[in-house]
Amino acid sequence: MNAEIIAVGSELLLGQITNTNAKFISSQLSELGINVFYHTVVGDNSKRLDEAITVAESRADCLIFSGGLGPTKDDLTKETIARHLGVDLAFDEVALTYIKEFFARRGRAMTDNNRKQALVLEGSDVLANHHGMAPGMILTKNGRTYILLPGPPKELEPMFQFEAKPKLVALLNTDGVISSHVMRFYGIGEAELEDRVQDILDAQTNPTVAPLASDGEVTLRVTAKAETESEAQRLIAAKVAEIQAIVGDYQYGMDDDSLASKTVEMLLDNELTISAAESLTAGLFQSELAEIPGVGGSLIGGVVTYTEGSKVKQLGISQELLDTHGIVSSECASAMASAVRTKFNTNIGIGLTGAAGPTAHDHQPVGTVWIGIAINDEEPITYLLHLSGMRNTNRLRAVKFTCHYLMQLLVERGFSKR
Amino acid sequence: MNAEIIAVGSELLLGQITNTNAKFISSQLSELGINVFYHTVVGDNSKRLDEAITVAESRADCLIFSGGLGPTKDDLTKETIARHLGVDLAFDEVALTYIKEFFARRGRAMTDNNRKQALVLEGSDVLANHHGMAPGMILTKNGRTYILLPGPPKELEPMFQFEAKPKLVALLNTDGVISSHVMRFYGIGEAELEDRVQDILDAQTNPTVAPLASDGEVTLRVTAKAETESEAQRLIAAKVAEIQAIVGDYQYGMDDDSLASKTVEMLLDNELTISAAESLTAGLFQSELAEIPGVGGSLIGGVVTYTEGSKVKQLGISQELLDTHGIVSSECASAMASAVRTKFNTNIGIGLTGAAGPTAHDHQPVGTVWIGIAINDEEPITYLLHLSGMRNTNRLRAVKFTCHYLMQLLVERGFSKR
Repeated sequence: MNAEIIAVGSELLLGQITNTNAKFISSQLSELGINVFYHTVVGDNSKRLDEAITVAESRADCLIFSGGLGPTKDDLTKETIARHLGVDLAFDEVALTYIKEFFARRGRAMTDNNRKQALVLEGSDVLANHHGMAPGMILTKNGRTYILLPGPPKELEPMFQFEAKPKLVALLNTDGVISSHVMRFYGIGEAELEDRVQDILDAQTNPTVAPLASDGEVTLRVTAKAETESEAQRLIAAKVAEIQAIVGDYQYGMDDDSLASKTVEMLLDNELTISAAESLTAGLFQSELAEIPGVGGSLIGGVVTYTEGSKVKQLGISQELLDTHGIVSSECASAMASAVRTKFNTNIGIGLTGAAGPTAHDHQPVGTVWIGIAINDEEPITYLLHLSGMRNTNRLRAVKFTCHYLMQLLVERGFSKR
Repeated sequence: MNAEIIAVGSELLLGQITNTNAKFISSQLSELGINVFYHTVVGDNSKRLDEAITVAESRADCLIFSGGLGPTKDDLTKETIARHLGVDLAFDEVALTYIKEFFARRGRAMTDNNRKQALVLEGSDVLANHHGMAPGMILTKNGRTYILLPGPPKELEPMFQFEAKPKLVALLNTDGVISSHVMRFYGIGEAELEDRVQDILDAQTNPTVAPLASDGEVTLRVTAKAETESEAQRLIAAKVAEIQAIVGDYQYGMDDDSLASKTVEMLLDNELTISAAESLTAGLFQSELAEIPGVGGSLIGGVVTYTEGSKVKQLGISQELLDTHGIVSSECASAMASAVRTKFNTNIGIGLTGAAGPTAHDHQPVGTVWIGIAINDEEPITYLLHLSGMRNTNRLRAVKFTCHYLMQLLVERGFSKR
């Protein structure tokens, strides 16, 4: 089966929003082994949408639409498809009741145009929308499958995963399975990583190995085709081990792991508490850790010391140290890490100072960052970065490098990593 | 002129990355008054790319390609277009020299496949790449314009703005201009905003007014067509004033403003210093302010007090208050705001506490957030939110509402807002 994803919405063509739905659906289809050869975006225009459907039918046997199912007169996806296929629209009673209850629960009056959302293609399977009002649909006609999903990602994503995907899998009636896992690396460039695993990349057949770099991270996607899921997983595990033997030192995790989630996992597993003193990142390191549920078992807190005075007053760093070595210095990062660790009585203290940009700070060029890491009573270790991005890319990179170095250091000290 | 944007890259179809280039180019074209009727994404496959070009030529007179200009054998955009148009590829000496110097500067050996990046379509205008190696191209043939841009956004965006756009404007040879501005609102839902400006939306001709909601914010894009730029700006200003008369209370800014940038601007303009004590947001409020260059004139710093103990120990909040009212309470947010203001000796102190999710916290349901704002010696004001998103959406919304309420409060106190 090969699919085309058609996003409907003039706001996409005006550049007001990004087509994240296509990315989401594509990654889901990729895991099912369904090929996606094209994405199309078309505006809220019935004629042009109709033409896009004709083009897509000439090159795909599954058309997946996102958007245009809402109550306004701009929303015309199902009306256009109905006309295109010569299928009627009819009210779905379940959806209509759901919409009425949606308004009743909120104590708001239901306007007439909201009824329109309960219209569905006759003969289609209705996909329930548990996060909004417009239901989705799946219809097979003339040997082709049409799936209609709502535009808002918070409605589309659960509807695809829990309503559409099982029906799609049933349609596939496939003999084998395709599975894939993503290996995640940090602290190594894409070119260097590729160079080091070049023999594996050149020899790949099944599993395939595909590198990708973004946001300073590099990933390798390992995809296997097999008779059974367990056989596919076995093939992947063997290839992953082969790659780890070469560049395992740089791998921080798999699949949906992030540097922050792996760091939090490692801290919790080893019952280590952490605090941070942040200057250029101004709370971003702590905030990134706090994205992970359960972090409260490790993150006690910390300070943001954005000004020179606050470093002296809040952390007790000596004015002499700052005068001698500067704010953006190994000595300052080290003193910040030590001071915050003592102040918050944690196992680990982090100190972050640097020149994020757009202008030099403390006579240091933009992109200069010092990271200090204090573990228990050890002398803090410091790391120097020379980053080349914009202000906020540099701030985020500084946070990612902090996670990377902290995990490396903990592994060196004998702490366990999953 | 109407344009189609064709992104080339299998990683897009696999759902590994999002097509942010299409959004960027679309918003740029929208400002030039160039219609975009379709976006297409196609993989690194010469045959399918060729077919996509044929389809696009049937419906657009400007084709803009992103991606596939790199050194690897997967990169085949210009080769495919050359074959499609019957045009030769030739080495561009300027680009070749630039690539050689690029490697020399980094002290790395230039591999042979990198030469391929200097190949350009014969007869095209070469677009310099100041942030990478592969040059772009613009070529007019058979009455159609073909623009080739590299895939990485940090290369594509400046190349489009500074190299391609001026050439595109010259081609347009337009009689009039189209300009637009975006009005930004917070603290009001999309439906309510639309309802209140319904008469304006119904009567719109020139300027047009288009609403859009995302990330808890609502915007109105006001677009005018006129003989001259100044006439377009005059039309927009009049319409903006008309809208402001109705819903101006909720408007926080225009165009590229963010809640954080406007908050920082207001703090700096009024010479107000700020500090924050953060629990559920764990540094995110301070970090968002720190995204804005120059914030060091106002943001002194603050504390993250993620645990109950750290609220007592670092901020001196009484255990009795926490036992009586709980951590997620008006009293706690108020005490946090006061304490951090005193500790950092700032004009304003912010306190943020709540249950971000995924589970209830301190017996309060997920999404309950208390914001405390202390201004000078006044009794702190507190605000209660009931948010319905996921953990990190709730954390970000809490930060946005803090900016929104803080600006409202400062306006009420007579401080100036641009």
